[in-house]
Formats: sequence, structure tokens, C-alpha cells
Amino acid sequence: MATLNDIGVAAAINILTAFAFFLAFAMLRIQPVNDRVYFPKWYIKGLRSSPSVNGSAFASKFVNLDLRSYTRFLNWMPAALQMPEPELIDHAGLDSAVYLRIYLLGLKIFGPIALIAFTVMIPVNWSNNTLEHSGLTYSDIDKLSISNIPIGSHKFWTHLVLAYGFTFWTCYVLKREYEIVAAMRLHFLASDQRRPDQFTVTSISVTSFIRESSLDLINKVLVRNVPPDPDESVTELVQHFFLVNHPHHYLSHQLVYNANKLSELVNEKKKIQNWLDFYQNKYKRNPSNRPSLKTGFLGLWGNRVDAIDFYTSIVERLSRDICGEREKVSSNTKSIMPAAFVSFKTRWGAAVCAQTQQSRNPTTWLTEWAPEPRDVFWENLAIPFVFLTIRRLIAAIAFFFLTFFFMIPIAIVQSLANIESIEKALPFLKPIIEVKIIKSFIQGFLPGIALKIFLLFLPTILMVMSKFEGFISLSALERRSASRYYFFQFINVFLGSIITGTAFQQLNHFIHQSSSQIPKTIGVSIPMKATFFITYIMVDGWAGVAGEILRLKPLIIYHLKNSFLVKTEKDREEAMDPGTVSFNTGEPQIQLYFLLGLVYAVVTPMLLPFIIVFFALAYVVYRHQIINVYHQEYESAAAFWPDVHVRVVAALIVSQLLLMGLLSTKEASQSTPLLITLPVLTICFHRFCKGRYEPAFARYPLQEAMMKDTLERAKEATLNLKGFLQNAYIHPVFKSADDSDSESESEWERSPALVATKRTSKRFTPMPSKDGGSLLSLDQVNDECLKP
Amino acid sequence: MATLNDIGVAAAINILTAFAFFLAFAMLRIQPVNDRVYFPKWYIKGLRSSPSVNGSAFASKFVNLDLRSYTRFLNWMPAALQMPEPELIDHAGLDSAVYLRIYLLGLKIFGPIALIAFTVMIPVNWSNNTLEHSGLTYSDIDKLSISNIPIGSHKFWTHLVLAYGFTFWTCYVLKREYEIVAAMRLHFLASDQRRPDQFTVTSISVTSFIRESSLDLINKVLVRNVPPDPDESVTELVQHFFLVNHPHHYLSHQLVYNANKLSELVNEKKKIQNWLDFYQNKYKRNPSNRPSLKTGFLGLWGNRVDAIDFYTSIVERLSRDICGEREKVSSNTKSIMPAAFVSFKTRWGAAVCAQTQQSRNPTTWLTEWAPEPRDVFWENLAIPFVFLTIRRLIAAIAFFFLTFFFMIPIAIVQSLANIESIEKALPFLKPIIEVKIIKSFIQGFLPGIALKIFLLFLPTILMVMSKFEGFISLSALERRSASRYYFFQFINVFLGSIITGTAFQQLNHFIHQSSSQIPKTIGVSIPMKATFFITYIMVDGWAGVAGEILRLKPLIIYHLKNSFLVKTEKDREEAMDPGTVSFNTGEPQIQLYFLLGLVYAVVTPMLLPFIIVFFALAYVVYRHQIINVYHQEYESAAAFWPDVHVRVVAALIVSQLLLMGLLSTKEASQSTPLLITLPVLTICFHRFCKGRYEPAFARYPLQEAMMKDTLERAKEATLNLKGFLQNAYIHPVFKSADDSDSESESEWERSPALVATKRTSKRFTPMPSKDGGSLLSLDQVNDECLKP
Repeated sequence: MATLNDIGVAAAINILTAFAFFLAFAMLRIQPVNDRVYFPKWYIKGLRSSPSVNGSAFASKFVNLDLRSYTRFLNWMPAALQMPEPELIDHAGLDSAVYLRIYLLGLKIFGPIALIAFTVMIPVNWSNNTLEHSGLTYSDIDKLSISNIPIGSHKFWTHLVLAYGFTFWTCYVLKREYEIVAAMRLHFLASDQRRPDQFTVTSISVTSFIRESSLDLINKVLVRNVPPDPDESVTELVQHFFLVNHPHHYLSHQLVYNANKLSELVNEKKKIQNWLDFYQNKYKRNPSNRPSLKTGFLGLWGNRVDAIDFYTSIVERLSRDICGEREKVSSNTKSIMPAAFVSFKTRWGAAVCAQTQQSRNPTTWLTEWAPEPRDVFWENLAIPFVFLTIRRLIAAIAFFFLTFFFMIPIAIVQSLANIESIEKALPFLKPIIEVKIIKSFIQGFLPGIALKIFLLFLPTILMVMSKFEGFISLSALERRSASRYYFFQFINVFLGSIITGTAFQQLNHFIHQSSSQIPKTIGVSIPMKATFFITYIMVDGWAGVAGEILRLKPLIIYHLKNSFLVKTEKDREEAMDPGTVSFNTGEPQIQLYFLLGLVYAVVTPMLLPFIIVFFALAYVVYRHQIINVYHQEYESAAAFWPDVHVRVVAALIVSQLLLMGLLSTKEASQSTPLLITLPVLTICFHRFCKGRYEPAFARYPLQEAMMKDTLERAKEATLNLKGFLQNAYIHPVFKSADDSDSESESEWERSPALVATKRTSKRFTPMPSKDGGSLLSLDQVNDECLKP
Repeated sequence: MATLNDIGVAAAINILTAFAFFLAFAMLRIQPVNDRVYFPKWYIKGLRSSPSVNGSAFASKFVNLDLRSYTRFLNWMPAALQMPEPELIDHAGLDSAVYLRIYLLGLKIFGPIALIAFTVMIPVNWSNNTLEHSGLTYSDIDKLSISNIPIGSHKFWTHLVLAYGFTFWTCYVLKREYEIVAAMRLHFLASDQRRPDQFTVTSISVTSFIRESSLDLINKVLVRNVPPDPDESVTELVQHFFLVNHPHHYLSHQLVYNANKLSELVNEKKKIQNWLDFYQNKYKRNPSNRPSLKTGFLGLWGNRVDAIDFYTSIVERLSRDICGEREKVSSNTKSIMPAAFVSFKTRWGAAVCAQTQQSRNPTTWLTEWAPEPRDVFWENLAIPFVFLTIRRLIAAIAFFFLTFFFMIPIAIVQSLANIESIEKALPFLKPIIEVKIIKSFIQGFLPGIALKIFLLFLPTILMVMSKFEGFISLSALERRSASRYYFFQFINVFLGSIITGTAFQQLNHFIHQSSSQIPKTIGVSIPMKATFFITYIMVDGWAGVAGEILRLKPLIIYHLKNSFLVKTEKDREEAMDPGTVSFNTGEPQIQLYFLLGLVYAVVTPMLLPFIIVFFALAYVVYRHQIINVYHQEYESAAAFWPDVHVRVVAALIVSQLLLMGLLSTKEASQSTPLLITLPVLTICFHRFCKGRYEPAFARYPLQEAMMKDTLERAKEATLNLKGFLQNAYIHPVFKSADDSDSESESEWERSPALVATKRTSKRFTPMPSKDGGSLLSLDQVNDECLKP
């Protein structure tokens, strides 16, 4: 066990590492050549352009020669904290702003808890000498923990009272935060202040989606599972259905095309284009030597051809294919998916449609709020209801096996990838491997590498699972992945560190153990693992966060791309990789710290300062990154907050159960009834919060909708909503070619048809069917292809 | 253990008992004097009147002298089956018709299962002689059960395959039934064919609520938790809110008055009136002796007064109090609850309002479908949201203790109520108690009586709990009580019979046992309890059902009332106690049989015929009772079906888990993975059904609503909906005095106010406020009081 000294040394090392990262960051960020790596957000927003414009000397374009700026190398920290929250919301979206509030939540919860724990509990723990007399090996940290209290002591009442205190404080902070975030969300959805801002965006390629207005979010409804009809096309079906059932509110709709193949082709063309650029650049720099390549596998064999001609021909072929596919998609009715984005004249109408059941069969005509255009995950729009159930089942089973049995394939790989089998398979490597240094390196390195690779790919695997499950927005995908990632971490990092053995062994153990024994087994081991988790927090939390700000990988990739691929300013813009907040990996990490903090708050309060430092550091770093780096992929208006809330509550309940288990082994079992009430009360608190605040994240109140409608009607009575909403929801592959808007739209939807139909059949044809405006924009896209 | 012979004897006894009940019933029902006991439904519907009208001789008014009718004493059975289902729905409501389908569901599930079990499983079980060689005592029933298969035998595959087969069959039947019931419900809600029928009702007092039309169900929305406003009354608040937020659809609203005290007074008056009638009748029969009574406790001491004068004065005082209270309720704003029934012009508008969130704070302006007027539980309409959470918590905790600790108070009562303590407390009884027969009777009887009384009052206790929880309709109260009653029975009857010991001992046992051990512990005991459950089914099921048709208690009470209280024909009508289907006790009983059937289908198929007989018998009996006896208290349009469905699915899962536990002790553990898949698949099936069919029970699709609206507008364009809906929702105590309708209503709501308000404050005052029509009807009620 580590002594306080060991912890001190580890802390010093990690603080130095973090400091070194910060120093490197401070050096690199003020070099103009790295400007696009460390401030991509401003480029994307069009508020900053390449330094070449204002540079004077040639060198100053690449290296910062102003020595004074080196002395202020930590000045990014206050700068990151200066931007007020409303401005931050304007600048980076509500998602990012609320994401930062999770770190603040951590500070708000653990600050006072740490204060009380240090003033009350540590003296109580310290004032015993159970461990000294026990003859066990123990560390100084343990002397400050609950382990130092003698068995059956009345001092456990302190811990009990503090457990209550901490629970109430946590619940209070959680409730307040939920309230604030819900209010922020409703305010954000209602405000259209954002609109003009977002229209000033000038950058083109990466941000072509930003142009959509916030209005879409609350005027548009996504309808899925349109039942097939042999006599009518999807567009007619949708139009007639909504004309009949929402006569006063329906405005127009946009169909969804199955453009998955097209999007593949476009991606391939982009890749080939990159190679073409590479060779063209090479040729330009050295015109005497025209580049060539072999056409075979990996360029290792095959005929040698001229590289530029070769790739030019492929790009041309792909362009033709793309045009053909594009035409096929827009002309072939089979590529129309049974889904549509329906626009309404009023927010009220959209709110009504999104919240109600449309047809007798609740699995058809499913309506829900349309996600933001950027947020749509197009491939999943056409999955029928039955398959959704089956897909969820399969994903759940797969996740179960992934969580509990992931060690099995890794162990197999590890057993195969030892030195003997490598020597057998590749005998010519034998002399190299037998060199002692290389051998020991391989022996030390190989067993770990399989696990490392797996953990590196875990978020991707979870994301694939979520995609398979059929969620239709990126935000939902990320939320789902996050909750799975958290569960995985809970089982394999938290429980896995406390109880040694693989997750499956634990599971097997738990199944054969009584349910009252499980909290005991875990609870007893908890105090002993405190030092391990302190080290974990420093390595994963402190150094990890400091590493995040350095952005080593994007830095290298950007410079590689910049030297080999970039020809124009636009290319350089594409070479930037701003990255995103990546909720699916970031949030579970924070949650692990919430869990650790709550579990150890009563048991080993020494852990709390380390967690507080993490939250503070991460808050500053991520605030800086969100302001200067990350590009907002989508805007879900903080739809993830209920998940955050429920996971903190779950951590709270876990901490209470483990404390109960721990105390029951300390012969303080008279406290058990009092400890059982805690989780019951916490669950009640959760249910209250769910009823009180969660609807704000799933529904849009009619009162708000009506208020905004009335306001808008009074302010801009002549707003051409239809033209405004025209091209909002087009698959990204169509977008890239289509930058012109068409305002000239037939006006027939303006006069809603009031149809007294008595027909109960599946076809509602209230008026002579016209081909809706939904195909028009696609036709325009096709016209682009036909241009010479 | 019982042999086949024992079972045969028990069966014979129970069959004879049931037969005796049927015979007695057949005798009693054809006596004209009992006509109102056995055919009250027809009296209530006004299709039958007292036999005095068509009787010729005096005796034939009381005794049936037609001997031929005695020979056809079982002819009620085919008669009960003859009425086709649509007619039954018209006659007794959809609730009753669907309730009968639960019995049919039992027959549909267990008929084919029994057939296959008997042709396949019983030969497989019989063809072993494990039990003969085991040296254990065993019965013939056990020879037919799974116990007879040797350990580790391959014959367990038969059971495994059949478990799969039975699961699929059950799921198939359940799904089909859900589909049918959902369709029946939607059809019922949509059809207004019922309207004219229900207007023809002539009976007055009991059925004064039947007069409301089905239209109410789908045009009315109940809004609760109207937030208090210092400047506006509730009626203004409601009116303004809906005029602003549902401008095109809002029609009118009715306030809810807190008339709990008034209703108490009315009930007391009715009770006193009964006594007055009793003494008046007594005096009429024997005019020489004017009845008198003592005013003290139970009439045992106090001043002797003239009974008729005494009660007349009380009745007069109560009448005055009632009028005073009535005036107070209607004039005092404090008696207006923050809830209202809001009517809409169209079904579409009501469907929208019921399914959407109204205000930013989801705990105010709660909207939901208004229950049928008869179905409203008035007292609970004003509970705020926070208290609902707390009340649910308290009720859940209370129910937990009730289920697991109910034996403790009973044991205390039992220990107190033994002979010694009685002798100590009441020494003068000693000589009587010491008589041997009485002593042994008390000793045998007393310990049981506390338990019996508790079980008798259990449904009432559960109902009180549900009321405390704050449900606002009788149907919801009954549904909740039913699910609690089922859980109680599951723990205390099913598990309690299998594992001896009190529920709390079981719970304690289970907590200290591993979760894989629990199904084993129970599963192993299951085959041994088959004979017990067979006897239970015969006593509780067969004889119980036969006893139900005899209606002994209502028979006695009716004749008592008839001789002492009845003066007029109206009194006689009130003396009838038709009773109701009482879903809260009936359905859990059926569910217990589903559970037993599914658990024993694979283990001891001999049990199945007994269950099938129960379902068949109960179906016929309850069909007869529903047609001839039960009065429909409310109509929830089969809202209980999702509960029925989920409980059968739960029984299925329990049966699968127990089979898994049983087989794992038989060293057939290679079957475990296959058996684990079964519950997983079943849960998936449940989730699919929930998504596919449950919305039909909670929401009303807009397509349907629009269709009906359009149809109605075409058919009766001039229907005065407002007058029609005027007095639908008035507290029953007001109803009794108010039989006149007022059609003359101000027409101002006809022209909806299109208000462009920008106000975001809590007060929406779109137009000069007029006092809505909601108070009018109450004023009329008050006018009644002022009449001389």
C-alpha cells in the first residue's frame, strides 16, 4: 500500500507532466503556423483568416518571434474563463455550454462535501489507532479513512449523518442544476435571436449545415414508417395524410432519399482527389520528374503508370458515376424512404403533431421532433418498427457479451501473439527477435497491445452498436453510446479494480452470492483501493486533460496534410480537424469521477481534493477548447441532461449501498435501517425530478409554442416560411452541389383544403393530387450535373 | 401426499357442492319474490318491472307454482351463452364484455396446451419408474409429473421443447387477443351508436349517470393542477388559458367543487331516512303501538323518545344543513378545486389537448382524458403534484409492509385472543367458556378468525391505499388495487404455499440466498405442491364460482330491506344491490389460475383440466351474472387490458424461471442456456406488444378523431354540442336534485377569439372576461333548495 509519501511523489510526477503539456501547448499555440490547429473554431466561424495576410516577414508567418508573448504562457486560462455564458451559447451552441456545466456541477457538489469531510470526518477517523494495533500493514491514507474506526464504534454515527448530509446536498445541487438547464433549454428553443448570427457564417464546406435556422427545430416534425400504399407515392401519401389530419397547420414536406450509395461514391471521390492533389503537388515542386505508380496491391507490383493521369481518370469516372447515381436516386421511386420531414405553419401545429399519435396503428406514421438537419443520421430513417425491437434485443445481447466476455478474445489473441508462435509463423524474423532487447520488449509489449487496441476502439464499437439499433440522430447515438460506455467502465474499471478478476468471473461470483452479500463484498474492498484510484485520477484525469489541450494528433496530421495535399485556401480549411466535444467518451469519464467522489466521500475523504482538482482543470481546459477549437457537429439543445442527471443519481445510490455493505461488516448493523431509507429517498427524488423536469427535454409545451407563434405573427406577418424551410433537410451529398435557393414555389398549400371526407380507407385523397415541392430541389441538383 | 383417489374424492365433494349451489340457485331464481335479486340488471335498464303487475293469484307473486319450470333448472346456462358479443356490449358495456374475454383467454391458452401435454408429456413421464425405485413416498399424480423422470435423463428435452411450444402458443394467443381488444376499444370509442340506447334509460336514482353520452369520453379533457393566481378566479384562469392556447377548439369548461362534506351529509341523511322509513313502516303495521327509542349509545340507554318524531327532526335538520352546505359550496370560491373539465368543439381538439404538454412547468395544467362522469373519483381531483410523489412513496412502503409483515399484527391478535386472556379480561364468561365443546370451538376458531377477517378486508384496505395515492377515476383505483392484490396473492398464496413460512421469512431467506439459488429452491418444491393446488382450485375456484351465482348475501339483505324499509316502488329499486363485476378482486383471482396453469403446464400437467373446468364454469357463471345481475358502475372502455396482458406475461416468465430452477437440480443443466433465452424472448414479445398495442389504451389517434369529426359535421351540422355537454360533469350530490337541462347558454364561445397577445406573464386575458357557464348549473341546483 502506498504511503502519503508515495502519493506525494506520484502527484508531483503527474503535476510536472501536466505542467510540461501546458508549457508545450503555450509554446506551440503562439506559432502562427499552428494557428489553424489551436484556433480552428475561429476560422470556421470566419472570424480569423490565415496569418499570411497580415504577416510582414516571411519567418513570422511560421514562427512567433515576439519574445514577450512567451512570458505570458498561461494567459489562455483567464481568457478561457472570461467569455460569459450567453456569449458562449451564441458562439458554440447550448450543447457545449451545458456540457461545461457538468464540470461545474462536479465542483459544486464536491467543494462543500470536501470541506465538511475534512473538518469533521478526518479528525474523527484520525483520532483512533485501530490500524496501529491491528498488526496489518497500512498506509497513512488509511489512517484518515473509515478503516481506522474500531469495529462496533459509535463513531460510525458521524459517517451515517454525513452520508445523509452529502446525499441531501447532492440532490439539492442536482435539482437546482436540472431546473437551470431545463430553463436554458426552453429559452434556447424559443429564442430566434440566434438566427441572424448563424446566417453570417461565411465558411463553406465544413459548415454548410450551420446555415439552417433554429426555427427548423421547432417547426418541423419527422414522420417515419409511412405505411406503403400501392396506389399512391410516398409524397402523395404524406401530403394527403397531413392535409386531412392537420388541415390548418400543414405547410409542406420534404422526402427522404436513400442516398447511402451516393454518399459512399462521394467519399471515395474525395479520397482519390486527395491522392491526385498529392501527386500534382509533387509534380509542381519537381517538374522534371513526373510521378508514377504501380497499379497493384499497395503499389507494390503491377504495371507502372503515370500517377496524375491514372488518378485523373478515376476521378472522372467517379464523377460520372456520382451523376448517374444522383439521377437514379431522384428518379427512382424505390430510393424514396417511407419517411418525411413535415413542416408546419405554426410551432403550435408542429408541437401538436410531434406529441400525438397519428394513426390507429401506433407503429405507423410515427411522428417526433425533427432533429436539427446537421443532427440527422440519414441511414436509419427507414427501419420498420418490428425490426427496431429485434435490433434493440440483438444490440442488448451483444453489449452484454461485450461487457462481460470481452477478455476472452483478447486472451486468445494474447496467447497466439507470443514470441514462439511468431517465430513459427515467420521464421525469417527469428534472428531479429532473438536479440535480447527486442525480445523483452515484445514480451512486455505484446500482451498489452491487444487490450489497448480494444479499449481504443471501444467507443467506435459502441457507436456502431448504437447505429445498428436504429437511432435517427447523431445526438441520440452519442447519448446511447455514452450510457453504454459508462456501464462498461462501471463494470470493468470501477468494479474490476475493486474486485480483481474479469467481469465474467465477477458476474458468476455475484450470481452465486446472496444479494445482501454483494454490497458487503464490494464495500469491504473499497477503502483498500483508495490509493489506486487516487493514482488513476492523476494519470487519467490530470495528465489526460492536460494532454487534451496539446492536441498532438491533430497537430501532426494537419502539418502532414498541409505539406502534401493543400493547394488552395479551401484545402487548408479542410485539412483542419477541429474535432468535437465527443459526448460519448467525455461524459462517461466525468461520470466515473462522480462515482468515485460519491463513493469515497464518506469512506476515504482524502480522495476528494484530487477529484476537485480534476474538475477544475478539466473545466478550464474544455472551456478553452470549446471556445477555440471544437467544431459543433450538431445542436441537440442539451437533450443529454436527463442522462447526466440519472447517472449521478445512480452513482449516489451505488455509494449508499456500498456504504451499507461496508458498515454491516463493521458491526454497525443498527445503522442498516437508516441506510436503507437513503436509497429509497434518493429514488423518490429521482422520480420527482423525472416528472418535474424531464418533459422539458422530450416535449414542447403548447403555451410556449402559442406565445412564440403570436409574437412572430405580430412581428413579421409576411414571412415566407415555406421558402425559408424549403431546403433544410436534404441529404448532405446533395447539399454540396446545391448552394442556390429557390423561392419560387407553387402556392397551393397556402389555402388549406378543408375536406369533409367520409372515406375510412387507407387512401385519403382530398383534392387532385399535385406533385409536391419536395422533388423540386433534387431536380435542381440534377441540373448541376448536366451543366458542361 | 394425496393419491389419485383422494383427489377423486375431493373432486366429487366439490362437484357436489357446486351442484348443490346451482340447484339452490335454480330453485330460488324462478321464485318471483327473488326476481329483483337475480335479475336486477333488467330492472335497472327499465326492461322489467315488479311481478305484481302480471301476477294473477296472490301466492304466485311470491312462489313459483309452475312445476314445469323446475325441471329445466339448468336452462340458464345456454341462455347465458346465447347473447352475442355486440349485444352484450350494448347491454352491459365494453368493460364487462372484455372482462369475460379473460376467461375465454384462459380457455384458449390452456385448451390446446392441455391437449398436447396429455398426449405427449404424460406418456413420457409415466414411462419411467424413478419414484418406485427411489423409496420416497409418492402419489399417482407424481407418477404423471416431471418428478418421475430420472436425473440427467434425455427425456427432459421433451419438457424443454414443450416449454418453448407453450410459450409460443401463449404469446400468440395473447397477441391476437390484445389486437382484438384494442380494435374493440377503438371501435367502441368511435361509435356513437350507443348514444340513443343510453338515452332511453328510465330508472332514476341508481343510474342517473348513465345518461351521459359516450361523446363525453372523447370530447372532454380533465385539466388538473391549475396554478393559483391572485388576480383571477379558477374559472377565468381556465377559460383564458384555453382560449389562448387552443383558440379554435375550446368550447367550454366545468369547474370541480369540493363537495366532500356535502356528500357526507347526503349520505348521513339517507341513512337516517332509512331508519325513519323503518319506524314508519312499523307504526303503519301496528298503529296501536307508536315506536320509541333511547337516544344514547346503540339505543341502550338515554331518554326514551318517540322514534318517528326523533328521526323526522334529524332528517329536517340534515336537509337544512345540506341546503346550507350546498349554497356554501357554490358561493365560496375556496370550495372550487384547481381542476376543471374542459370541453372541445371537436374530438381532434380534445385529442390534441389530452396528449400534449400545456405549460412550461409540466406539473401544472396537467391534461388527460376525462374519465367517464360515472368513473370520476371526485375527492382526488385537487392533489398537487409534489404530494402525489410523496403519497405514492408512502403507499408503496405501506404496501410493502402489508405484504411482508401482515402476519405480525395477526399473530399478536391471535396470541391475545386465546382462552386464558379472555378468561382474565372477562372473568364472568369463565363458566361458559369452560364447557368443553365451546372451549374446543374457540380454540379451533379464534386463531383463524383474525386472519380470515384480515383477508376479508384486504381488498378494502388496498382500495383505501389506492385512493390515498390520488388516482382520479374509479377504474384506475380498481386497476391499481387489482395489481396490488395480485402481488399479495403471488407472495402469500403462491410462494407462501410452495415455501412454508411467512412472507417475511421468505424475503429474509431470499435476501441471504444467491439469486441463482432462488429459482432452484422454489422450482424443486413445485411438483410436490401440485395436489395442494388442485384442491385449492376446486375449493376456491369451482365452489367459489358456484357460490357467486347464488348471491346469498344480497338475497338476505334484499329480503330484510324489503320487509322493513320499502314503502314505494322506488325504495324497492334502491333496496336491490346488483353489485358490480369488481375487477379489483376478480381479476387477480383469475390471474392466479393463469399463473398456476402456466407453472404446472410442463411440471404436472394433471393440474390443467381442473383449471380448464374453472375457466369454463366461471365464464358461464359470470356471463350470466353480467347479463342479469351486475350493474355497471363505470365504463373505462377496457382500459384494464394492458394490465391483464402484462400479468399473464409475468406469469409466463415466472413459470420459465421456475422450470429453469427445477431442471438445474435434475442435472439437466445443459438445457439452461436454452431456458434463459425463453424469458429474454418473452420480455421482447412484451415490449413489442407494449409498443404496438398499448397506445390504443392511453391515447386517441388523431386520424380517428378527424374522421369522426368530419363525419359528424357532415351528418349533424347544427348539433348544439355545448348544451349537450353542459351538465355532464357535476358531482353526484348535485345531480340528485338537478334533473332539468338548460339549453339557453350564451353563445359567445362560438366565435373564437383570435388574440395576438404578446404577454408572457401568467395571466392571459385575451378579451373582457365573462363569467363562464360553469356556475350556472350549480345556481339552478341551489334554486331547488329555495323552493318551498
